[in-house]
Amino acid sequence: MAYPGLEQILDAAARISPYIHRTPVLTCRTLDAMCGARLFFKCENMQKVGAFKARGATNAVFSLTDREAEPGVATHSSGNHAAALALAARERGIRAYVVMPENAPAIKQRAVAGYGAEIVPCRPTLAAREEVLAGVIARTGATVIHPYNDYRIIAGQGTAALELCQAVNDLDVVMAPVGGGGLLSGTALAVRGVSPRTRVLGAEPEMADDALRSLQAGRIIPSSYPDTVADGLRTSLGELTFPIIQQHVDAIVTAAEADIISAMRTIWERMKLVVEPSAAVPLAAILSGRASLAGMRVGIILSGGNADLDSLPWRQK
Amino acid sequence: MAYPGLEQILDAAARISPYIHRTPVLTCRTLDAMCGARLFFKCENMQKVGAFKARGATNAVFSLTDREAEPGVATHSSGNHAAALALAARERGIRAYVVMPENAPAIKQRAVAGYGAEIVPCRPTLAAREEVLAGVIARTGATVIHPYNDYRIIAGQGTAALELCQAVNDLDVVMAPVGGGGLLSGTALAVRGVSPRTRVLGAEPEMADDALRSLQAGRIIPSSYPDTVADGLRTSLGELTFPIIQQHVDAIVTAAEADIISAMRTIWERMKLVVEPSAAVPLAAILSGRASLAGMRVGIILSGGNADLDSLPWRQK
Repeated sequence: MAYPGLEQILDAAARISPYIHRTPVLTCRTLDAMCGARLFFKCENMQKVGAFKARGATNAVFSLTDREAEPGVATHSSGNHAAALALAARERGIRAYVVMPENAPAIKQRAVAGYGAEIVPCRPTLAAREEVLAGVIARTGATVIHPYNDYRIIAGQGTAALELCQAVNDLDVVMAPVGGGGLLSGTALAVRGVSPRTRVLGAEPEMADDALRSLQAGRIIPSSYPDTVADGLRTSLGELTFPIIQQHVDAIVTAAEADIISAMRTIWERMKLVVEPSAAVPLAAILSGRASLAGMRVGIILSGGNADLDSLPWRQK
Repeated sequence: MAYPGLEQILDAAARISPYIHRTPVLTCRTLDAMCGARLFFKCENMQKVGAFKARGATNAVFSLTDREAEPGVATHSSGNHAAALALAARERGIRAYVVMPENAPAIKQRAVAGYGAEIVPCRPTLAAREEVLAGVIARTGATVIHPYNDYRIIAGQGTAALELCQAVNDLDVVMAPVGGGGLLSGTALAVRGVSPRTRVLGAEPEMADDALRSLQAGRIIPSSYPDTVADGLRTSLGELTFPIIQQHVDAIVTAAEADIISAMRTIWERMKLVVEPSAAVPLAAILSGRASLAGMRVGIILSGGNADLDSLPWRQK
C-alpha cells in the first residue's frame, strides 16, 4: 500500500471532526521578539485527552468496519495514545484494552481507566507487554492499533498541521516534535499537500536523536538509551513513518535537555500554557540557535499538555 | 464626579486597544460537565504583563494630559499593577516609579524592572511605603496611579467584560474575582451597559471576605487578616469601588482555600492554562456548590496567570 497523501488527511479530518477539537492557534509577541521570527502555536495541548494523539486514534477507530470494530481495540502504549484510544473507543461504543506495566504511574492508569478502557497489567518489560497483548488479542479478537506505525494514525495526526495551514497563510516553516514519527510524517504529508513551498522541520531531544541519525544513515537506527525529559519522544522511528520523513521532511534539529526544560518553562511563563516537555522541543531548538529561522513565519505544533503537576522538571535540578 | 458608565468604558477600549491584547475566550467541555453549565473563560492570564491590570493602567496613563504625563507616574503596589503601570509608562515614553519593600520577591522586582520602571526600595511596612512614595512625588512630580481606587482604572478594567460580552451572546452570569474591586466594579458597569439582563457575581476567598461583609453592613469593612493563597485578592474595597459594587453587583460568593487550590489545579490540568490562584476563585465557588449556576451560560474572567512556578500551592500541603 502506498502511503497516504493529502486526500487521506482530508478524509481523516472529515471523519474525526465530530469527536475532536479544532484547537486554537496562539501567538506571543514576547517569544517572537526572543526568536526574531513570527511563531504560530497550534495548541494540541488543548486537544481531547490533552494531546494530538486523539486525532490519529480517532481516525483509526472510526476507519474500522463495524465487523472489525465489534471486538474492540487494544494497545500496549501507556501514554497519550492509550488515553486517546480509550476515548475514541468509547465514542464509537466499543471496548479498549490497554496493556500497562504494573509499575506505571497511578496518574496514567487513572487517566486511561477514566476514559473507560480495561487496563490489563503486565510485568514492566517489553517482552511481557507484547506477550500479554498477544493474549488479549487471542482472547478478545480486538484489533491492535499501533501508536504511530499505522497509516490511519499518520493521516489522523496530519490533520493538526492541515488546520494550522488553513488558519495561518504563508508559513515559511512548520515544526513538529518527532518520537515514533507519526506526528511528523503526518505533518509533512499535510504541509506538502496544502502549502508546497513551506519547509517541514522535525525536532527531537539530542538524547533521543534516532531520527537525525536514521536520516543520515539512510536506515532506521533506534535510540539505545533515550534518557530524555521529553518522555513522549523516547520511541524510535517505525517502518512506515521513516520513509515518509525521509522523503518529505527538510531537516531534523535537536535540542539539549536543559534547553528543553528552559523552553518548556518559557511557554508556561510567557504564553501561560501548560505543555509537556515533548511539546517544547521545537522551541528549544529555535531558542538555542540550532534552527535558524530569523524573519520567518513559523508554525509549531504544541503536541501535548499532560505534564505531571506534582513533579516539574525545573524543580529536580 | 459621577462614576463611569458604558461610555467611559467604550472610550477606554478605544484608547487602550493599540497597547493591549484582545484576549481569547476559551471553553472546556470537561469543566462544563463538572459544573452542569456552559462556561466561557476570558483569558486575561494571556493579557500583557499576564493580567487584566494592563487594561486599567494603560487607560490611566493614556488619559493623562501631556503636561500631567511628563514627570511620570508612580505606585507602591508591587504586584501586577506595578508591572502594568511600568509597561504603560514605557508605551507612553514616560518614567514609572515603583516603591517596593526591600524584601519583595526577586521575581517581582525583575518583572517590574524588566518593563523599565525605576524601583525605589522601602522598609516592608505600609507606613514606609507611603512615606517613600510621598518622597518620590515631592522629588519628581510624578502622578500616583492607585491600583483600583481610580475611575480611569475602573473603566479600563471594565473593557475585559466588554470584550467578553461582545464575543459571547446571551450570558446569564458574569463572574469576576474581587480584591480592591477595580475589576469587579468595571465588570459590573460594562455588563450593565451592554447586557442588562446578565447577572454579575463577585467571588472572593472566605479568608478575605471583606466585599461580602461590606455589602452586608452597607459600609466598607476591611479584611483584618487576609491570609489567602489568592494573593491578588488580599486588598479590601475602596471608596470608589464600593458604591459601584453595592449598586450593580448581584451577589458575592466566597471560596475556601482548599477549593481555590483545587480549582486552580483543575484549570491547569483540564484547560492547560497557567492561572494564578486569584483567577481560580470564581470556579472554586462554582465547583464547591456555593454559586448555583446549573444550566446557565456563565462568563468568567480569568484575571491573571502570574503564578510562581517554583512554588505551587498544591506542593505545600
